[in-house]
Amino acid sequence: MTSTDLRPPTAPGTPPIALAARLGGIRGSAIRDLLTLTAHADVLSLAGGLPAADLMPRERIAAAAERALRSPAAVQYSETAGLARLREVVAAHETGRTGRPVGAADVVVTSGSQQALDLVARALLDPGDAVAVEDPVYVGALQVLQAAGAAVHPVPLDADGMRVDLLAARLEAGFRPRLVHTVSSFHNPRGVTMGQERRRALAGLAERYGFLVVEDDPYGLLAFDGEPPRPLAAHGDHVVRLGSASKVLAPSLRVGWLVAPPVLAAAVERLKQSTDLCGSSLTQMITAELLADEAWFAAHVDGVRRENRGRAAALTAAVDTEFGDSVTRSTPTGGMFCWLEFADGTDTAELLPRALEHGVGFVPGSAFAVDTAGTDLRSAARLCFATYPPDVLTEAVRRLARAARRSNS
Amino acid sequence: MTSTDLRPPTAPGTPPIALAARLGGIRGSAIRDLLTLTAHADVLSLAGGLPAADLMPRERIAAAAERALRSPAAVQYSETAGLARLREVVAAHETGRTGRPVGAADVVVTSGSQQALDLVARALLDPGDAVAVEDPVYVGALQVLQAAGAAVHPVPLDADGMRVDLLAARLEAGFRPRLVHTVSSFHNPRGVTMGQERRRALAGLAERYGFLVVEDDPYGLLAFDGEPPRPLAAHGDHVVRLGSASKVLAPSLRVGWLVAPPVLAAAVERLKQSTDLCGSSLTQMITAELLADEAWFAAHVDGVRRENRGRAAALTAAVDTEFGDSVTRSTPTGGMFCWLEFADGTDTAELLPRALEHGVGFVPGSAFAVDTAGTDLRSAARLCFATYPPDVLTEAVRRLARAARRSNS
Repeated sequence: MTSTDLRPPTAPGTPPIALAARLGGIRGSAIRDLLTLTAHADVLSLAGGLPAADLMPRERIAAAAERALRSPAAVQYSETAGLARLREVVAAHETGRTGRPVGAADVVVTSGSQQALDLVARALLDPGDAVAVEDPVYVGALQVLQAAGAAVHPVPLDADGMRVDLLAARLEAGFRPRLVHTVSSFHNPRGVTMGQERRRALAGLAERYGFLVVEDDPYGLLAFDGEPPRPLAAHGDHVVRLGSASKVLAPSLRVGWLVAPPVLAAAVERLKQSTDLCGSSLTQMITAELLADEAWFAAHVDGVRRENRGRAAALTAAVDTEFGDSVTRSTPTGGMFCWLEFADGTDTAELLPRALEHGVGFVPGSAFAVDTAGTDLRSAARLCFATYPPDVLTEAVRRLARAARRSNS
Repeated sequence: MTSTDLRPPTAPGTPPIALAARLGGIRGSAIRDLLTLTAHADVLSLAGGLPAADLMPRERIAAAAERALRSPAAVQYSETAGLARLREVVAAHETGRTGRPVGAADVVVTSGSQQALDLVARALLDPGDAVAVEDPVYVGALQVLQAAGAAVHPVPLDADGMRVDLLAARLEAGFRPRLVHTVSSFHNPRGVTMGQERRRALAGLAERYGFLVVEDDPYGLLAFDGEPPRPLAAHGDHVVRLGSASKVLAPSLRVGWLVAPPVLAAAVERLKQSTDLCGSSLTQMITAELLADEAWFAAHVDGVRRENRGRAAALTAAVDTEFGDSVTRSTPTGGMFCWLEFADGTDTAELLPRALEHGVGFVPGSAFAVDTAGTDLRSAARLCFATYPPDVLTEAVRRLARAARRSNS
């Protein structure tokens, strides 16, 4: 018997079932598999969506941990929906962001906003339910929706975000999604931000056709101009907002949250209970202290924002210098990503192994396709500008250009 | 339109769907709902499964946090399967426990062992699949299995743990579970430990009939005699072991783990990726440091064990003094729980509100029934002896006895 076959052929009365076959359907993330390849010390990786560890407030987190651990509450189990104090702080923060009253009871704290998305999908979706997503799509959302058995329908993006007009036409023709997922600001991977008119229109469609918009907003505060876009949730109440401390404080806190109608928040809380009982009281106490110190937090986020703006400028300048007219690129206005499209039709999935040989990693556009064919995205690439300081980004783009020239010759 | 109805009656082409009705099927834990009631300052709660916060190594955790946070890795995202160093430490620990070689690749670190259970169920179960559990059952397992749509079959417990002979007879008659779940040592809620002969028999049945045993073992190290029972996994390889740092270090670390055949470990890792991306590198670094310091950890666990033994002795002495022959009780040999059965058929669910009036909380036996009728468990109660020091336990039992006398008069 092999280690991949947990039912021996001799099991009485049941056919042998290969565990490997049973489990093969769970799709991994091509991006995270790639991260393994790019984790070598000599590869500069523009592939990961990693915020810069050097900008995270390690000393402040250590001080907050020391303070928290003076209380026994910092080592014990905590409320499934999240520490009361943190829910209050998040509610105040979200009230400020959306301009609508958010109460602590509307907030559930989760293990990053990824868990919020997973719990919302598990609470609301039955296999076969229709869900609309942006195309190219945030891969973490696609994985959650596929795990829930949803029928995933792509809606194209342009420079102004989701093509809400195309979604409206499909709704008019009878399309009935249960959820519509959007990374509304500084989209992953495309970098674009949905305009306010489209946000208003989408919130209206949600009310008219009875679906929920999941507004996935981890990057909103990282607007280069210091003015975070007004959330979609400001325009209507058929919106579940997902937020995160990962990009503005530190991913290792594993603190995200959702803001939802009370009946959905309660259902998500019950599901979280069976999923992992509760989050960490320690990291939640740390997060509450840092978010509640508004002056410090504003100054900290401003620092991250300014540094990221400089990094994006360095990356785009290097792209212009090295590639000239041979690529079209986005102009980042926030977030962490720049999107390239090769004018000559370069297949970026084929470029990748050569790029790794030249010491640079990125994610091919096809990895973000809703269906795996992904032909429209074949010549695109996502570059993360947040991970490295400017000089390293310049060197990384030089390596990418060398790999691309090599690949064309 | 109310806030509980997300599809307005006027939605074109779709019937109104009340979100509340859709979500009502997600069963909450009666125990955790109860915890809310017992959280008042004037109620001594023997209800929660809370390890004693005063025995947790807060200063050592604070020192480890400070050390970890000198490295940028302590704030960044980490590997989905868990920090390599922690997986190695857990693998060494599990090798020692089971006497079988466990490699780091067999270990996936999860958000408490509850998440390990949820991910195993999601990876392996289709709706309708048969699963056997102990009756009374660990409620967190029941919730996971119900969420996965499993057909849950109870197997009785006696003083020697699961009645493996009864399971064997059912298997012989054609019963084909995909999983069998057991809290093998110091059972929650019953307090019993499965004998080694039954462990060997169950491991053999798993191989013969092609199912997996999920050995849920958060309490094994807390054997009062300092000799943790030999794990079920020592007897065969059709066993997935779940472990946890919650009861031996601190629940707020949110560190649990599973040890599984590589193909299952890989599937769980992929599912975890879409569920919450990864755990906290910070709390994993802390846990790795504390588990790896073997001399300190052994002394620490020994201290917890001895203190818990004293607490259990205080609680059982008080039960004997206050109740005499009117209850039968278990004699704890480890873990956190003592099990009472009222000889006069007292309905403990009816006793509970009176007990709360008298300032003491517990969990009625019926809360642990596999099916909600739970008539066999109607006169039983679970008391946790780990949360309070001896004098407080004595007072809590006095209050319970007063409430019971009141209820019988």
